[in-house]
Amino acid sequence: MTAAADDPPRGPLFISFEGVDGSGKSTQARSLAVHLRARGADVTLTREPGGSPGAEEIRALVLNGDAGRWSPETEILLFTAARRDHLERTIRPALARGGIVICDRFADSTRMYQGATRGDLRAMVDALHALMIGVEPDLTFIVDMDPARALARGLARPGAEQRFENMGLAVQEAVRAGYLALARAEPRRCEVVEGDRAEADVAADIARRALRRLAR
Amino acid sequence: MTAAADDPPRGPLFISFEGVDGSGKSTQARSLAVHLRARGADVTLTREPGGSPGAEEIRALVLNGDAGRWSPETEILLFTAARRDHLERTIRPALARGGIVICDRFADSTRMYQGATRGDLRAMVDALHALMIGVEPDLTFIVDMDPARALARGLARPGAEQRFENMGLAVQEAVRAGYLALARAEPRRCEVVEGDRAEADVAADIARRALRRLAR
Repeated sequence: MTAAADDPPRGPLFISFEGVDGSGKSTQARSLAVHLRARGADVTLTREPGGSPGAEEIRALVLNGDAGRWSPETEILLFTAARRDHLERTIRPALARGGIVICDRFADSTRMYQGATRGDLRAMVDALHALMIGVEPDLTFIVDMDPARALARGLARPGAEQRFENMGLAVQEAVRAGYLALARAEPRRCEVVEGDRAEADVAADIARRALRRLAR
Repeated sequence: MTAAADDPPRGPLFISFEGVDGSGKSTQARSLAVHLRARGADVTLTREPGGSPGAEEIRALVLNGDAGRWSPETEILLFTAARRDHLERTIRPALARGGIVICDRFADSTRMYQGATRGDLRAMVDALHALMIGVEPDLTFIVDMDPARALARGLARPGAEQRFENMGLAVQEAVRAGYLALARAEPRRCEVVEGDRAEADVAADIARRALRRLAR
């Protein structure tokens, strides 16, 4: 028996949104949360780094201050500490009560961004994840966009331009390639969504795919 | 050819001090630093958690606030992040210029205290250390004392009583047993020093042993 069309979508389901800076993934995460809540679902919308009071404090410690204040290795440890807190205090309790968690960035972001800047960090990130986190989302939307296009679209957003300048377009391109490789490697978890369309079209596409997964 | 008696002791040598709360190890670490500096040595006296500007900020984040604010696992990650920063910014540069580093607590403290409160954390601490730190001191002084004696001596020190009450005497006794087991397992690195004597006697004993190691 399938659920009636007007039954609220039910979890537990852990959904993450990934993509290069400026791809619109945060907007899309919010849109999906609004859509599912309108259908009566129990939705926890959260983000990384951060997502719990302790993790937000760690986020502030990592992101405020000079570039080069932390080495990449220390930064990975701090992000992993924040993720562990976020998982324990926000994600797991929401899933335990049968809710839907929508998370703007999760472990894939650490893998892609650290891996793109220094290839040898990827193995460290993976080992640390296996040891201290050990959880992947059930469903990951990769909002795909050419980084140059994302840059052009994202300029109006505060902070985005600076972030691009700090990292450089080549790093964003490596991150995009990393996400697409991840989607090929984990097709059951990852759904690539073409992001360079009208916001409402992208949102409708994502909502349709999420509901299909929730109906299983 | 051995060094002349009045040549300054030279590193690189990484010395840590360990022991239960109230054992006097911080006082002894300071005494050894004063003694070696008086002989002209390049000594960096440092401590954990903390020991570098970034690590001190992480220390404040971990130690201020309610007990139970962080899970043991998140706390281990934060301590490891602090240790990585301390190692990169303070310990390694000092050793690289041939100095002597004296550190009040290092990784053994995390092993003993976390391991004493929950046995299954010990393997996590060890794996995290192997992955992200990978360095042990050359010489570790374990200032040994019966925790009940340490408690009696330490009551005058601000914070010590509260810390004992939080952990309980049984935990401190497990920590002491852990240190003694470590000394048996790693006799080349660890020197057990009887701490329940006059401060000056303990200091003279430690200075003698440190100079013997530096003369090698």
